[in-house]
Order: sequence, then C-alpha cells, then structure tokens
Amino acid sequence: MDDRIHEHAAVLVDWSARVDAGDDVVVRVGEGAHDLGVAVAGALGGRDANMLACYDSPELERAYLRAHGDDFESDPDFELALYERADSVLSLRGTRNTSEHADVPAEREQAYSRARQGVREARLDTDWVSTVHPTRAMAQAAGMSYAAYRDFVYDAVLRDWESLAAEMRQLKEILDAGSEVRIRKAGDATDLTLFIDGRTAVNSTASVADDSHNLPSGEVFTAPYDTAGQVVFDVPMTVRGQRLEDVRLVFKDGVVVDWRAGVGDEVLRSILETDGGAKRLGELGVGMNRGIDRPTGQVLFDEKMAGTVHLALGRAYDACLPDGETGTDSAVHVDLITDMDQEGTTLEVDGEVVQRNGTFRWEGGFGEA
Amino acid sequence: MDDRIHEHAAVLVDWSARVDAGDDVVVRVGEGAHDLGVAVAGALGGRDANMLACYDSPELERAYLRAHGDDFESDPDFELALYERADSVLSLRGTRNTSEHADVPAEREQAYSRARQGVREARLDTDWVSTVHPTRAMAQAAGMSYAAYRDFVYDAVLRDWESLAAEMRQLKEILDAGSEVRIRKAGDATDLTLFIDGRTAVNSTASVADDSHNLPSGEVFTAPYDTAGQVVFDVPMTVRGQRLEDVRLVFKDGVVVDWRAGVGDEVLRSILETDGGAKRLGELGVGMNRGIDRPTGQVLFDEKMAGTVHLALGRAYDACLPDGETGTDSAVHVDLITDMDQEGTTLEVDGEVVQRNGTFRWEGGFGEA
Repeated sequence: MDDRIHEHAAVLVDWSARVDAGDDVVVRVGEGAHDLGVAVAGALGGRDANMLACYDSPELERAYLRAHGDDFESDPDFELALYERADSVLSLRGTRNTSEHADVPAEREQAYSRARQGVREARLDTDWVSTVHPTRAMAQAAGMSYAAYRDFVYDAVLRDWESLAAEMRQLKEILDAGSEVRIRKAGDATDLTLFIDGRTAVNSTASVADDSHNLPSGEVFTAPYDTAGQVVFDVPMTVRGQRLEDVRLVFKDGVVVDWRAGVGDEVLRSILETDGGAKRLGELGVGMNRGIDRPTGQVLFDEKMAGTVHLALGRAYDACLPDGETGTDSAVHVDLITDMDQEGTTLEVDGEVVQRNGTFRWEGGFGEA
Repeated sequence: MDDRIHEHAAVLVDWSARVDAGDDVVVRVGEGAHDLGVAVAGALGGRDANMLACYDSPELERAYLRAHGDDFESDPDFELALYERADSVLSLRGTRNTSEHADVPAEREQAYSRARQGVREARLDTDWVSTVHPTRAMAQAAGMSYAAYRDFVYDAVLRDWESLAAEMRQLKEILDAGSEVRIRKAGDATDLTLFIDGRTAVNSTASVADDSHNLPSGEVFTAPYDTAGQVVFDVPMTVRGQRLEDVRLVFKDGVVVDWRAGVGDEVLRSILETDGGAKRLGELGVGMNRGIDRPTGQVLFDEKMAGTVHLALGRAYDACLPDGETGTDSAVHVDLITDMDQEGTTLEVDGEVVQRNGTFRWEGGFGEA
C-alpha cells in the first residue's frame, strides 16, 4: 500500500478530526476508498478509539432509491441514535463512477434528503471530517491519469498544516481588521471592491479545531456585505454538471447588474435567477493551498488553490457574521474562481497590497514584479 | 448482474428476515459481498424499509486490532444504540481472503470479542440473518472453481423454502414425539442410539419466523440427553483450521469412552479435553437441504446437506430443552458429520425407519433398497 495512504489517514485522524482514546468514531467508507479505510482503521486502533465502519456506496443507494416509494420516514431512529452518540464521523469519499446517480429521479433524491435532515444535523454536530481517496473515476472526471491524480490529491492533503495554519492566520487578521478589499487584474477588466468591515474571516485549516471540516482545505474566507465594480472568472468550473467559463459579472450596490459567460450562459442565468440572494455575494475566499497547482473542476480542490480568489453567489456562512446580523440568504452557494497568479494582479485591503501576482507580502519574491 | 443475486436478496429479505415497510434494517456488507449488497438495497427499497449499510471488512478489522492496545471499551455506546434500535440485521458475508486474520494475535481477538458481548446480544435480539455471497476466496477454500462454487451456493440458497419447511415439519413432529433415535450403517461399525424424549426439535428453515437465522439452512435438530454405541463420521471436516477425517467415537452412558481419528488426532483430542461437556453430545441434526450435494469444509453448508446426520460434541441449544432443564454445557460445540446416503443405512425413531439409504419415508424411492 502506498505510504501516502497511511500519511493521509494520520493527518485525517490527528490533525483534522483530533481523535482521542475512547472516542466513538463512525468511518464512512466510500465504495472506492477501501485502502484509505484500512489505513484509517489502523490509525484509530493506534489511538485506542472505538470504530464503526459504514459503507457509503452510490450503487447501493441508487438501487435503494430507485426501488423505494416517494415517501421516506423522517430520520429513522436507529441511524439518528448512531450519529447522536458518535464523537466523530470520518467520510472517506472515493466514488467509482461520478455518474452513478444519473438515473435516480431528482425528486426522489430530494425527498430522501429532506427526510434525513435530522440525521444530517446530528452528523454535522460531531467532529466530522470529509476527505477524498483518489479513484480512477475521479481522475477521469479531472481529465488526469490515475497516477497523476493520486499525486495531485496527496500534494493537496499532505501539507505541513501547522505552518500553513499559521500563515493563514496572518491573512485572517488582515481581513478581520479591514474594511475594503480590492481586486485588480491588468490582464482583464477586473476591478472589484468588496466591503467587509465587521465581518469575521474563517481560517479553513482542515481541522475541527478551527471548525474546518474538509481535508484538503487551505483557504481564508469572509462574507462581504456590499460589492461594486466588475470581475472576470477565468478558472473554468463545473456547476450542476455544466461547464462554466470566462464569466464576467458587474456589481452595483452589491447586486449583479450585468453578466455574461463565455461558456455556460444558460446555467449562469438559472443560478442568478434562483432568488434575490443569488445576485449578491455570500463569500470572498482566498486560496492558500500551494499543493493544488491546477483546476480540476472539483470545487473542493479548485477553491483552495493558492494564487486564486473565489467569490460565491448566494448564501453567506454564519461564522463570518456578527451576532444578530444576517448575511446574504439564498438557496444557492456557487463558487466562481479567478486566477491571481498573473502579471499586474493585486489584492489590496484598505489600500495596502496584500498579494501581488499571486505572491503574499510575507512570502519570498513579493514586490519583485 | 447474475439474476440469482437478486433472487438471493429476495429470499433473504422476504422469506428469511420477513422485512416489513418501515423496518430499520442494518445491512452488514462483507468486503466481497458488494453485488449482493446492491441487490439487498434494491429489495429493501422495494419494501419501503429503512436501510443503514455497515462495512464488514476483515482487512479494516485486522488493521484496527493489530494497532489497538489490549484493553477494549465495553460495548461502545454508539454501536449499542444502533443495534438496540434495529429491527433486522442482515449480514452479507463474503470474504476475499479466509486467512485475513491469520496474523491478529488470538488474545487480542478474544479480548475484542469479550468487550463486545452486549453489542452482540443486541444484534442477536433483532430479526438477524446471516448469509453468504460467493467469493473467489470461498471457492478456493472449498476446493472449487468460482463458477462451480456460485452454482453450489445458489443451489443451496434458492430453494422452495415453503415446501422444504413443510417437509421438515414432518421430521420435527416425529422427533418431538419420539424417545430413541437409532443410526445404523452397514458400511462401517456405526450403531448409535440417542435418547431424546422430552426434548423439542427445531425446524431450521432459514426464517426468523422459525427462529432460524442462517441462509442457507435446512436441518432439523434436537438435543439428546443420553447416547450409547458407536458412530463413524466419514464426511471430512475442517475444525480450528485442521482437517478431521474418519472420526470414530464410542459412547457409554452419554460420554465418549473411546475415540480415534483417521486424520486430525490432535485436534480431536484437544476438543474432547476442553471440559466435561465436550465428551457429551449437545446436538443431533438431520440435514435436509437437497441443494447441497457435497461437503466443502464449511460447516454452515455441510451440516445442512440432505442425506447426512451431524452430531455435535459440546453445548446444547436452549431451544431444544424443556423449561428449567439444562442440556450439555461446554465451551465447545463441534459438529461432526456422517453420510447416510449409503447402502444399508437407516435412521430409526422408536423402532420405525424414518430414513433409509438417505431417503425419507415420505419421499419417492423409499423402501426400494
């Protein structure tokens, strides 16, 4: 077994989930994540934790959902009891076919999801962490060879998280103290100002200690309350199964007033027309994971890529908001990404350049542009 | 997918576990039992039952046990809560390597098992059923090709259980009313009398409705309180990983007074010397599953083979005993099998021949010897 699988398991159990002796840990093993499951089982045994392995299989779920009627019992007692008592839930995703649910009726899937809200909340109430074991299907979806995709995933996951977390803290402090963030790119028409005073930035360090639940992570994000100017998103995205490229948005008083997409006009329109909040920004995120060196169409990775900034149309995260204040509310939260690793690109906070051409001011090479 | 996998799932869910709409069903999917898991998920969806899939992986368990210390927490709360609330637990066994736990220290395994007695009892308190999905590893252990082994398993599992249960009821009634069972074989020195009056036979129909929890099943068994004479077990067995062939036991006043084994002398000695109960019989079972046509060294199948009788050294099952009476008590329960499908072989109850040369008296061909 690839040594990196054991390293991945150790990062997951120790850095991310902070598992202690005696913890009750549910491990949800994805269909293609068996090897990571074995490594995680070893890591949990080594911590004298208690383990229950669940099987997270899109094929079982597809068969179940297609055969089931339209009514689902709300939050079945046995599953609720399991998650209510668990200390941690480790989800080892690793699908063998990203299209496995393509022939499950969407309404059936939604009804099932709605009926299980209590189960989901119980799970989110634990020290849960979701991670990814590289599979051939995911390599295929990323347009990469299996070997290259494994390298890609482990480069993203096997970071020095302690030192990355310290670096991220610097940016968080700047954003927490700041009022206006300005993004400019010489290569296109991007010149956007986001207003953030009073908002709190979240350090997404891939650790439950920072309330960060995805491995890999590596972004700092906050919730702007107002936006003005225009921005071009030059990193291609896959949203609702559709390709989205070269999106340009123009904001006035926090609302999108003009837009176009080089590719994916229809899906962009359908997002923007969802509800009132879908035309406002819910998130400004700054990617800081230097292990992620290219977009793969998988937002979990893409938005963490160092040298990118992402802005999300729609819902804001509560963690960024002062008590009693509500941020952008919407049924959607769609991340769009712009590449900052280009000549003539700056990220400024209150007039001071924090990042230039993809390099932060505390990094070597800053100011050499 | 082989149609027989879907038929197997339907027998398991409907005949064996009697799953109803709204039941909370835990499905324990063995490492090599994915395809049966998919079929069972479809069957459970079709019954509008609730499903939680667990992952029963010898590799995960091995890694966990080898890394864990020697002390295990008793009955972890989260797992206990799950099984206490479950209506059914379906175990889909299907190992990919029957030797996977060969390098787990036996004491570690035993300590783990002891610590989980409450979890086990909670599971046994549900409408549990254990079945087998044919794997290459199991075919190998049976000395059969994979294709032949699949045929073997499905022949054993896909019976007309309704009519087999009716046939078995005839034998149960005879045994319940009877006092003495006599087994004679002309081909060897077997002439054994077992005393059973007051004991109750169990109809092992592979259905929770008959308190029978293994699929396949197909045996009627009771618990003799006394035994006299001698018996030769000519069906080879694998006990504690050791081969056991041509075992001859001589009983006087219910106790083994003389013994030999053609192969496996040492393992037979160790069984007999376990404790006082290990020299007595705990079970007389009559195989009635005509789908099982050969021994494979897997007792779950072998003891159900039509035309065989098995006797177990050691512990008796409570279900066979009158209230307040205790049967043979022992730490062991080791089934030994003799072939009745031979010229000059009879099974008599109170002097009446019930089976001759492997054919029951209600079957065609009886009495033609």
